[in-house]
Amino acid sequence: MQLPLHEMCESLSIIVGEWRGSGSGHYPTIEDFEYTEEVIFGHSGKPFLTYGQKTKNAKNGDPLHSEQGFVRVTGDATLELVLAQPSGIVEIHQGSFAVNASACVINLESIHVGTSPTAKPVNRVHRLLRVDGDTLTYDVAMAAMGEPMQHHLAATLERKQK
Amino acid sequence: MQLPLHEMCESLSIIVGEWRGSGSGHYPTIEDFEYTEEVIFGHSGKPFLTYGQKTKNAKNGDPLHSEQGFVRVTGDATLELVLAQPSGIVEIHQGSFAVNASACVINLESIHVGTSPTAKPVNRVHRLLRVDGDTLTYDVAMAAMGEPMQHHLAATLERKQK
Repeated sequence: MQLPLHEMCESLSIIVGEWRGSGSGHYPTIEDFEYTEEVIFGHSGKPFLTYGQKTKNAKNGDPLHSEQGFVRVTGDATLELVLAQPSGIVEIHQGSFAVNASACVINLESIHVGTSPTAKPVNRVHRLLRVDGDTLTYDVAMAAMGEPMQHHLAATLERKQK
Repeated sequence: MQLPLHEMCESLSIIVGEWRGSGSGHYPTIEDFEYTEEVIFGHSGKPFLTYGQKTKNAKNGDPLHSEQGFVRVTGDATLELVLAQPSGIVEIHQGSFAVNASACVINLESIHVGTSPTAKPVNRVHRLLRVDGDTLTYDVAMAAMGEPMQHHLAATLERKQK
């Protein structure tokens, strides 16, 4: 049985759902790449949202990246994001959000990045996520591999219609 | 299309699947509690396993804890676990495993625990996981809330038959 959305999460109800689309990645240390992506924001009735995403190589469909985590709504316009990546990285973000009836902007900055002994070094991550109606776009910037903070990922996803 | 299990993960194939059962939790700072649990170890064909679990209050079915993360196989008998929890906690573990045809033991110690500004303080976590045929048992010990490392969780789960 699906419980109703927790009242702490109601202001973010616009992002709850399944999203599909595509994006591109850039970084000085790697070749540019194109990907398809599936993002799911779900909930269990508790005062957080679940967050999961998977990307695939746009050319051959091979699985690329994935992330799993949770969005903690901590106030009227503040939130935290915690997530883990199979690349051996965990991130804790603090951020803010602004919503109206049909749109939402979430701005997140990492306050903590942990890397396993075999992971590549990532120092800081910025995540900007926008929902406008049935379109979700995001930008990820990253300071990693000794490089300064800079653009890494951008994608445009559409809400999966039920 | 489900890709075959990556060769790096073959030695851990015995834990892949869905597991259901129940457990109990203890800690000096909280009341004892009983829970039911669902654990899923999956894979995408890449050299890691996905890990997810959810628990519910054994008495009233209310959702309790959940975790999402990834198991990185780093060698013949070594692995890493990265995970995120909706309580605002991320963990990175390093560990070892031993397997034979029908059993597996995985021993994990946290080398990194990150907590969001609104999370309770957790310092270190030990996780011991055993699979024997179609039974999975685990123990979690934790140093948190200013308490020394000690037993926190134990559960026994059975493999969901297909």
